Amino acid sequence: MSVTAPQGFEAAGVAVGLKSTGNPDVAVVVNRGPLKVGAAVFTSNRAKANPIIWSQQVVADRTVEAIVLNSGGANCFTGSFGFQTTHQTAEKAAELLDVSASDILVCSTGLIGTGDEAFRAKVLTGTEQAIAELNADGGAAASEAIMTTDSVSKISTYQRDGWTIGAMAKGAGMLAPGLATMLVVITTDAVLTPVEADEHLRAATRVSFDRLDSDGCMSTNDQVSLLVSGASGVEPEAEAFRLGLIDVCTNLAVQLQADAEGASHDITIQVIHAASEDDAVEVGRSVARNNLFKAAIFGNDPNWGRVLAAIGTTRAEFDPYDVDVEINGVRVCTEGGPDRPREDVDLTPRATNVTIDLRVGEEAATIYTNDLTHDYVHENSAYSS
Amino acid sequence: MSVTAPQGFEAAGVAVGLKSTGNPDVAVVVNRGPLKVGAAVFTSNRAKANPIIWSQQVVADRTVEAIVLNSGGANCFTGSFGFQTTHQTAEKAAELLDVSASDILVCSTGLIGTGDEAFRAKVLTGTEQAIAELNADGGAAASEAIMTTDSVSKISTYQRDGWTIGAMAKGAGMLAPGLATMLVVITTDAVLTPVEADEHLRAATRVSFDRLDSDGCMSTNDQVSLLVSGASGVEPEAEAFRLGLIDVCTNLAVQLQADAEGASHDITIQVIHAASEDDAVEVGRSVARNNLFKAAIFGNDPNWGRVLAAIGTTRAEFDPYDVDVEINGVRVCTEGGPDRPREDVDLTPRATNVTIDLRVGEEAATIYTNDLTHDYVHENSAYSS
Repeated sequence: MSVTAPQGFEAAGVAVGLKSTGNPDVAVVVNRGPLKVGAAVFTSNRAKANPIIWSQQVVADRTVEAIVLNSGGANCFTGSFGFQTTHQTAEKAAELLDVSASDILVCSTGLIGTGDEAFRAKVLTGTEQAIAELNADGGAAASEAIMTTDSVSKISTYQRDGWTIGAMAKGAGMLAPGLATMLVVITTDAVLTPVEADEHLRAATRVSFDRLDSDGCMSTNDQVSLLVSGASGVEPEAEAFRLGLIDVCTNLAVQLQADAEGASHDITIQVIHAASEDDAVEVGRSVARNNLFKAAIFGNDPNWGRVLAAIGTTRAEFDPYDVDVEINGVRVCTEGGPDRPREDVDLTPRATNVTIDLRVGEEAATIYTNDLTHDYVHENSAYSS
Repeated sequence: MSVTAPQGFEAAGVAVGLKSTGNPDVAVVVNRGPLKVGAAVFTSNRAKANPIIWSQQVVADRTVEAIVLNSGGANCFTGSFGFQTTHQTAEKAAELLDVSASDILVCSTGLIGTGDEAFRAKVLTGTEQAIAELNADGGAAASEAIMTTDSVSKISTYQRDGWTIGAMAKGAGMLAPGLATMLVVITTDAVLTPVEADEHLRAATRVSFDRLDSDGCMSTNDQVSLLVSGASGVEPEAEAFRLGLIDVCTNLAVQLQADAEGASHDITIQVIHAASEDDAVEVGRSVARNNLFKAAIFGNDPNWGRVLAAIGTTRAEFDPYDVDVEINGVRVCTEGGPDRPREDVDLTPRATNVTIDLRVGEEAATIYTNDLTHDYVHENSAYSS
């Protein structure tokens, strides 16, 4: 059911030839209310695509009527013509929905530098066709239309106490956190104020999408949006709603990790007993971005030396000679020295767990990443994204 | 001639079985004086190998008699036993050379976590054998004994006005700057004070080895040492000596880049018109560490969008929509937008030049890196380094 699982939303996905495959490539999600609350977080990459620059203005007043998304072109570094394309896309949707263009979010994904006149014409056509096909069961079609190199569409729902959260996501490469990462649309029929929606979204993305770092490469088009219809009439208890939203976001983050380009291992890096949560995140990310460690895991090699070498590049509080490392439950390093033999570690499962005990504090964080494989190199060495 | 090109130095390289191949694996370089000046820079990785911890103490008084180097084991994260091994290595060399152990530098390279009793016995035996074979033509043998995954030994010499600089280096992976990177021994018969030696070495490494970033992974064992014999009796003009030292260090850095594990392109990233040299280095390094960009170059794909996406993650002063990018002489991006078609770029040569014009200032820097290839993944996915 994706984004149409909650009451008050309609969606659609259509194919207009932005993708050479002929697969669906334009999606629209509309909030029928009664509330028209919107919140969004964006990539922190300073090189922002035109839809990001536009959407940041749209969400400023926290009122959002609809969101238009396209795959098959990022409309990034396409000049003023590209920005006009985004603006015209919002104007087209606004005219057909009889609302203000300043309440229409726009997202694009695909090759950076793509945004010519043919691209514009197809996006405008797709916007018109998708709006004509809007329906309360369109969530699945919308989630398929935003796929790029994704092998499967990614959706998640959560229900409790009469309110529902629905969500869809796309992303398989360039997966590293900005504020958010990849394209995500989350809908809910819970009754939330604009401030609550914004605070819940930032809190949930901080501990979910922000902790996913598949390949260290931050996108120019990342956006996570939350649309609130309030159609259930239920005002959720704040903590309950936040837990539900975190559940949905973490579920999608793990789906994105599982579908990362070319990956053969999903690596969960748990950093425990850190002096601060920031330290734990910095340490986890330094390991997640170490190509030698990532290649070793691809080779089913529990190379803990590369883990410690990566940690050593951080500013985190720790003593390199008082760190423990466990890989898939086997303590391979104790107090910065060798412990059990590498032969004891079974790295054949796709699910890989690395636990780093810094032994200095009480804080912890989990980073989700992937290994560095031949398929990753292959998929990213052709001009495609 | 390597490190024995200058007057006043003897060297040797021997095989004691630290390498499974049976190739030479222990080297000794001795300074016969008259001066016994030494300087060294070390990895800034906080996870430092035992030889680094030892050598930092040795060089503190800027007096160095000799340096013992081994391949086939990094002696890193091997506990107090490993540190004792380094100490005993220095004691053994000091005893045979009739000098103080506190003037013996030690370097190790190989697998992190390797440093057991068999390793210690072989290193001590190798130290004894190498000292027995010391000779004024031993530079070549020494340079071969420090090779790990290097396919060729790396040496460089520079002569001017009666003084000579000789040098050897090893390194093929884990190539990212700390203060230094990889193992390098530089010798000279020029007359230098300890302060001059230290200042020249730091100045030269800052613009050479520190600008080499092959795979973003910083080693735990990196050390660049300069031994000064003064045997030529010539006091060089300071600027002339520094230029000579920079020439030798840059020459070696480029040799290391050319031999980087699995690489198919040597990528020179020139960042120009930056507001500061630090900005230029940060921008160059962000591109050098972007796996999507590196994989694209492997695929002969001038994917300038990935260049701008990488720049956008830096704190450097620039406007993403006022940046120019040239790849192998073809302007593919002007003012943050598409310029000439990608088909115009020929990426078939191994030598690849990327020029990034930030258009905000007068500073510049050059970063040397490599592409991300199947061979890189292959060589680093087996338990070997």
